[in-house]
Amino acid sequence: MKSFTEYLWFNTGKRREYVNITGQVAEAVEKSGIREGMVLVSAMHITAAVYVNDAEEGIIQDIDAMLERLAPFGPDYLHHRTGEDNGDAHLKSILVHHQVILPVTAGRLDLGPWQQVFYAEFDGRRRKRLVIKVIGI
Amino acid sequence: MKSFTEYLWFNTGKRREYVNITGQVAEAVEKSGIREGMVLVSAMHITAAVYVNDAEEGIIQDIDAMLERLAPFGPDYLHHRTGEDNGDAHLKSILVHHQVILPVTAGRLDLGPWQQVFYAEFDGRRRKRLVIKVIGI
Amino acid sequence: MKSFTEYLWFNTGKRREYVNITGQVAEAVEKSGIREGMVLVSAMHITAAVYVNDAEEGIIQDIDAMLERLAPFGPDYLHHRTGEDNGDAHLKSILVHHQVILPVTAGRLDLGPWQQVFYAEFDGRRRKRLVIKVIGI
Repeated sequence: MKSFTEYLWFNTGKRREYVNITGQVAEAVEKSGIREGMVLVSAMHITAAVYVNDAEEGIIQDIDAMLERLAPFGPDYLHHRTGEDNGDAHLKSILVHHQVILPVTAGRLDLGPWQQVFYAEFDGRRRKRLVIKVIGI
Repeated sequence: MKSFTEYLWFNTGKRREYVNITGQVAEAVEKSGIREGMVLVSAMHITAAVYVNDAEEGIIQDIDAMLERLAPFGPDYLHHRTGEDNGDAHLKSILVHHQVILPVTAGRLDLGPWQQVFYAEFDGRRRKRLVIKVIGI
Repeated sequence: MKSFTEYLWFNTGKRREYVNITGQVAEAVEKSGIREGMVLVSAMHITAAVYVNDAEEGIIQDIDAMLERLAPFGPDYLHHRTGEDNGDAHLKSILVHHQVILPVTAGRLDLGPWQQVFYAEFDGRRRKRLVIKVIGI
């Protein structure tokens, strides 16, 4: 079994931003030299998420609108007693889930035709990190 | 380390459908010959999901009702500017998550007493695919 | 490749409870002797979940309040025709997701500075189980 680990850093210009990282994940798989296995793509912060969906601008905005509806930005969270204002970002991270696992088959990311990997930032404008870990043979 | 990959195809009769695939995942584990490891079960489309829960008809309908409440089918998504009408299916996929990882212990799916694996179709009536990948020893 | 499996048991005093299990997961990784790989932490019941977020009391209550808003405890679920009263717990489990995978790097849980692993009980006051499975080299 082989293992390969890489970290990506983000510092988004906006509070909420959705970054397509499919190319970077595919590159990590290539560098790993692994032909059969799995790659974990996982946010290392608790106010961000990783998901797989469409790279279509409309649906990205629809996802953002749904998350804002289900876990709105606002001043009323108990978490804000700590002085933070990002309670909504924690909740959005829970709803989207902070990670995905992608299959690696015949040396490549084994994704469906429309599947793209996104880093979802819910509390940006600061340096944040994500881990990519490939294991396999 | 060994690896085993299999694809399942679906073409549901209804737009939304919940298919119990526990038997097929268990079979893939058996075919793999793997005794200790993990199996990834992941939808390859962005309008479907995979989850683990109860094979009880009432809760399946309750899950569907909750998803329809949180991300309703309707004409008002920005994604629909592309000509699609399945914005809700993308959102439902995000909420449920498109994949699970199951432990393989002593050559078998290591599930709790009521855990069953479901393929959740949110935009059916077309051919769609799912990947099962087992890795381990 | 090596593999290590451990089960944790819970029997919470309250119906809903959020238990920080980061220490126990880290211990399992240490016992495994694995230096590079992944650890699956997965609830074995369909009315519980596992998530990664902040060990701050306010946000834990905010998460609980959001889940109660999106999937409230109540008598009106179809699942309750079976005599159960825990339909909400199944739905909360779906929304949070029942599992996480954590990277193991250089022999340690490779978590971000604020990431803590929680077992989320949605229908407690009974014995329930969780599996930790480490694979790697």
